[in-house]
Amino acid sequence: MKKNVLIIGAGGVAQVVAHKCAQHNDILGNIALASRTLEKCEAIAASVAEKGSMKVAGQICCFALDALDVEATASLIRETQSQIVINVGSAFVNMSVLSACIKTGAAYLDTAIHEDPAKICETPPWYGNYEWKRKQECENNKTTAILGIGFDPGVVNAYAALARDEYFDAIDSIDIIDINAGSHGKYFATNFDPEINFREFTGRVWSWQNRQWTQNRMFEIKRTDSLPVVGEQTSYMTGHDEIHSLSKNLDVPNIRFWMGFGEHYINVFTVLNNLGLLSEQPVKTAEGQEVVPLKVVKAVLPDPSSLAPNYTGKTCIGDLVKGQKDGKEREVFIYNVADHKEAYNEVGSQGISYTAGVPPVAAALLVAQGIWDVEKMVNVEELPPKPFLNLLNQMGLPTCIRDEAGERPLNFS
Amino acid sequence: MKKNVLIIGAGGVAQVVAHKCAQHNDILGNIALASRTLEKCEAIAASVAEKGSMKVAGQICCFALDALDVEATASLIRETQSQIVINVGSAFVNMSVLSACIKTGAAYLDTAIHEDPAKICETPPWYGNYEWKRKQECENNKTTAILGIGFDPGVVNAYAALARDEYFDAIDSIDIIDINAGSHGKYFATNFDPEINFREFTGRVWSWQNRQWTQNRMFEIKRTDSLPVVGEQTSYMTGHDEIHSLSKNLDVPNIRFWMGFGEHYINVFTVLNNLGLLSEQPVKTAEGQEVVPLKVVKAVLPDPSSLAPNYTGKTCIGDLVKGQKDGKEREVFIYNVADHKEAYNEVGSQGISYTAGVPPVAAALLVAQGIWDVEKMVNVEELPPKPFLNLLNQMGLPTCIRDEAGERPLNFS
Repeated sequence: MKKNVLIIGAGGVAQVVAHKCAQHNDILGNIALASRTLEKCEAIAASVAEKGSMKVAGQICCFALDALDVEATASLIRETQSQIVINVGSAFVNMSVLSACIKTGAAYLDTAIHEDPAKICETPPWYGNYEWKRKQECENNKTTAILGIGFDPGVVNAYAALARDEYFDAIDSIDIIDINAGSHGKYFATNFDPEINFREFTGRVWSWQNRQWTQNRMFEIKRTDSLPVVGEQTSYMTGHDEIHSLSKNLDVPNIRFWMGFGEHYINVFTVLNNLGLLSEQPVKTAEGQEVVPLKVVKAVLPDPSSLAPNYTGKTCIGDLVKGQKDGKEREVFIYNVADHKEAYNEVGSQGISYTAGVPPVAAALLVAQGIWDVEKMVNVEELPPKPFLNLLNQMGLPTCIRDEAGERPLNFS
Repeated sequence: MKKNVLIIGAGGVAQVVAHKCAQHNDILGNIALASRTLEKCEAIAASVAEKGSMKVAGQICCFALDALDVEATASLIRETQSQIVINVGSAFVNMSVLSACIKTGAAYLDTAIHEDPAKICETPPWYGNYEWKRKQECENNKTTAILGIGFDPGVVNAYAALARDEYFDAIDSIDIIDINAGSHGKYFATNFDPEINFREFTGRVWSWQNRQWTQNRMFEIKRTDSLPVVGEQTSYMTGHDEIHSLSKNLDVPNIRFWMGFGEHYINVFTVLNNLGLLSEQPVKTAEGQEVVPLKVVKAVLPDPSSLAPNYTGKTCIGDLVKGQKDGKEREVFIYNVADHKEAYNEVGSQGISYTAGVPPVAAALLVAQGIWDVEKMVNVEELPPKPFLNLLNQMGLPTCIRDEAGERPLNFS
């Protein structure tokens, strides 16, 4: 039984995590918020207070923290007596926060793979470059580390495990499809940190096909699907974290990730990318100033958290799984539909942040209750999916399925 | 009789100016090259030597200069005994270089209007904001200052004066049309300093219509013309320097400027502009660095002078003039066609730089010979056009006309 949660990061996802922790503080205990910018933490704490999100009377405290500083992070974990750390800060701090958790015995949860700011799209499997190198250390220290427990990666990994356990004897392919059919009303914006968002698309696209790593260019391969609620949608093969663990942990020859993009997004992205404005390598201006173009693009784009109040429409994210069951071919789509406006009304964030922020809190509850407190490093598909998906059904991210029998909610209680 | 030329600036236009001065150094005397970056001057001097451009044995010397420093500029004028200064540096240095000329008695020639780096698209007439405020001072000191003596402004102003003198009793409209039908083979590039290039299009578009200043947005109004050599071309109403003097000096109710843009250029421009990346106002990155987005865009774009070797195709720039002559309506198009490859072969620059760089050298020759040494500040339409156009016929920028009698070269000798 673990309790008291330290949330690292203070962006849109952290806002959702804080609200959801507050809604379950009878189990999770005290909440600490830490980021480089104290004011951002305080704004989140104020939002939690304003919406009355606390289930029972409890603490929510804010701290300024450089999460690249392992000692400072470990001290804060000890000072706040946090036994669970939810890291939703920049993807650059994962390894230092993990180190602090190993030092202190706190459980570690994150929602995206570690990145080196100087590198784009490293060699697959990506988890092998940083996270998995520390598996033994976690096991030796009985540190629970759950990697990539957002929506994608995260919930879609649990969908894959569920498909394997319940719906198939053998799986030929898993196509994870991520569609945001919402509208933010701006000329152009990214739904989360532009620096991380664009980095997903500027490198090579890795997919797992015929049990091999395959390379493509971004926007080279697309598909069109008729999906529940959001209708006909075009998506493009994209590199994504979950392929890099599912390909190792599941016996599935084809695992691909597809992200929906409108033509306008692709046009803006293509212009910026072709001009070199999405580069993480510094350039020198005529005046001699060294500047990273991507950081300037980030500076001129709308802050993703500012999009929430006017965001309308829905997201649909799920796993399209094909294979055999009882000697017959079958195809199932396991998915969630979330609504931007409902997310904003509940926790003050848009739907993309909501789908990423609710799952780590569900995971924290399972760690707190001992169900997922596995005392080692795991990816989500290595954990029992049903208790997790069951909790999400109650917490605002219901799971549905479309198969031979049509579309319906899935319930596991 | 004036001699010895100081060229300020070391970009693509300065390269053309240096070569053309060298080709006429029997009249123009010694050549001095000055810019912030000495190496750029030296590269131009080396190119002049390599191509053997000097007509007679003579000096070409290079100097590092901050042309915003009036005293340093005046000292260099005295030190080099330059009686003619051709300012083809940044548009931000015009007023300081003019001051140095007034101090030293050197003739001043430039090719673009003065700009304040912090302002975009000021109140018309633009010359009234800076240049014309110093008319009296020039007259008092007998300083010859010829403003805007590139191609446009410059040659097109002479075309307008010629139309007024030779082809019309009354003019209803002058539409200056600038088409670059060449291809540089890059994804995207500007033909001269991107900082100045984009500034032309990010503000309001001023035109002179029905004897009044009229405002439009960029890319709001377009026209399509069938032009000599380059064929059918679409151009967009654009704000431009020459409208601001022609509207004062000519009795013409409608004066407009049209620049040709392809759809790709407009798309890239629109994306960058809508995102705020063409702003001259600094933004702050997440790391706290203050950066002017436009300077970063400039840093990632190809250096305009690097385009020359692979540039192919032609430019067509001219004045479409409508009015009455001897009681009859008529329409004439006075124009030049230049070839990018020929320009590169002759002086190592592309056609846009060539059309901008040859005219100030023709003007310098007219100043040297006393024909245009007017000892006051003038715009080009205030000077006799024929000696100038005649020189350009010999120097690589022949004037043609299309009227009721068809297309043909114009000769004034």
